[in-house]
Amino acid sequence: MAQIPSIDDVLQARERLKGYAVVTPLIESPALNALAQGRVLIKAECLQRTGSFKFRGAWNCISRLAPDKAKGGVVAYSSGNHAQGVAAAAQMMKLPALIVMPEDTPEIKKANTRAYGAEIVTYDRNREDREEIANSIARERGAVIVPPFEHAEIIAGQGTSGLEAIEQAAERDARLDAVLIPAGGGGLTAGNALAFSAKSPATEVHTVEPEGFDDHARSLESGKRERNARASGSICDALLSPAPGELTFAINQPRLAQGLVVSEAEVKRAMVFAFEHLKLVIEPGGAVGLAAVLAGKIPTQGRTIAVIASGGNVDPAFFAEILRSR
Amino acid sequence: MAQIPSIDDVLQARERLKGYAVVTPLIESPALNALAQGRVLIKAECLQRTGSFKFRGAWNCISRLAPDKAKGGVVAYSSGNHAQGVAAAAQMMKLPALIVMPEDTPEIKKANTRAYGAEIVTYDRNREDREEIANSIARERGAVIVPPFEHAEIIAGQGTSGLEAIEQAAERDARLDAVLIPAGGGGLTAGNALAFSAKSPATEVHTVEPEGFDDHARSLESGKRERNARASGSICDALLSPAPGELTFAINQPRLAQGLVVSEAEVKRAMVFAFEHLKLVIEPGGAVGLAAVLAGKIPTQGRTIAVIASGGNVDPAFFAEILRSR
Repeated sequence: MAQIPSIDDVLQARERLKGYAVVTPLIESPALNALAQGRVLIKAECLQRTGSFKFRGAWNCISRLAPDKAKGGVVAYSSGNHAQGVAAAAQMMKLPALIVMPEDTPEIKKANTRAYGAEIVTYDRNREDREEIANSIARERGAVIVPPFEHAEIIAGQGTSGLEAIEQAAERDARLDAVLIPAGGGGLTAGNALAFSAKSPATEVHTVEPEGFDDHARSLESGKRERNARASGSICDALLSPAPGELTFAINQPRLAQGLVVSEAEVKRAMVFAFEHLKLVIEPGGAVGLAAVLAGKIPTQGRTIAVIASGGNVDPAFFAEILRSR
Repeated sequence: MAQIPSIDDVLQARERLKGYAVVTPLIESPALNALAQGRVLIKAECLQRTGSFKFRGAWNCISRLAPDKAKGGVVAYSSGNHAQGVAAAAQMMKLPALIVMPEDTPEIKKANTRAYGAEIVTYDRNREDREEIANSIARERGAVIVPPFEHAEIIAGQGTSGLEAIEQAAERDARLDAVLIPAGGGGLTAGNALAFSAKSPATEVHTVEPEGFDDHARSLESGKRERNARASGSICDALLSPAPGELTFAINQPRLAQGLVVSEAEVKRAMVFAFEHLKLVIEPGGAVGLAAVLAGKIPTQGRTIAVIASGGNVDPAFFAEILRSR
């Protein structure tokens, strides 16, 4: 297993991200507060560079590559948001990037990844192993693999979102009772778990996942890494990892409260709520935390809850469909 | 003519708004900066309470009403955003509110206004005079009229958005070369003109209007208040005032650079850009500033431009249509 990062790695990541990543706002909506009968603070990572938190980890990792080690560039496998984060970070470092991407990735994520200058190779999510494909290409090219979550620098980079949220909450005299984090492989969660356990230990850290892809919720309950039965079939395309990562789960297990699970209908309702009341575009996987709040999956009355809205990269046609069917 | 407010009124308004209005973030997008070859800072008033800047002025005015003077409540006439601002402010002050509203107001604005507890009376935008209707109702009820822009406290309240933008820009070492402000009656512009001329006098202040409703652009050129030929027929329903206000123009004329004008196609393109790249929901009237930047109506290369995205209250069905037809 790779090296477990510490809070110092998260603090160093923040220094590295200064001037490159967006310090995303922590947004508070009187309408949402009234509904929750408490305070809900939305960490709007949809406003991050490349439209999701993934740029944080990618930049923390790629900006440190030694030029002689990275001449073959970088290779990543990703359902889309990590791809854009890696592509943008590589472009800013003037390195070539190749992304191995599932065929069923939303078109906007493929197009945006290409727009950052990356090359794309697609694979079948149900029949092929993306890590094998990526490893083989990286060997051929002498490129460095940038994994989506099983990597100390990636996790530390994602954790900077939690550091910011803690400080932004303190600036407005809010004590966070809980933080809700969308979980795929668990990298964003692990980074936040490091940040919160060190800097805001009274805050309960919850993963949030879509039904059918609740590997974290079940793993936290059983105490070992449980797998999902399916590899595809959720609108939350950013959260379809087969199981918690070995490294991320080692960080998360001792630091997390129970995992929350939401339905697709609850996710769609949250996306429409964000459109109507928050005026934010949040993708399905990024809306699971808000969905958990709106669906009453966690007590909010008299409490202060931070919600990480992890991304906003959603196909316009699909978003239009959700707005029309509300 | 009513009393002309000063920068002191804007500073006092800010004190009054503390803890009630949202200090909206000033959002910077690396993608937009790259496109503009400069810095573009979006003051996201779509994230304001009630979904537009209008709450600022309404709260500044209504929160000061003496209880004995306001027992009949408040009456306002509005194309929608001012209605929601007034309704919410009145509800927070436990005062009844009645809003005189054009029949063709987007359904979401009517529904949201009712949701804040206000009563609605509709009128025909082309044949009836909203001020007459409102004045007559206010007399009957012993209610106080809260005008949309011709009022010192309304203008001072709207100006707090400019004060915040100036300070937020300074915090990130940005010197604002220009600020772009959507203009209907000119209240948001007048408040910002007061703020910028006092606190950031080197910043050029520009109104932005849709084609056919360019009364400010023409008035600034001719030196007197020019009227629009039409009263309706723009997707920018928030910007359809017949002419600059007498009070607002007295403030604006000596303080403004030339007015900018954008087409409906440019507005739609800006709304789609905000969806895809900024992850913000901006209504047509709120998107004219971004439209001006994207359409090259003002030089941006090597410059820093603040853009007030004044609101986000757009019908979901209409937004879906724009996404589909992009």
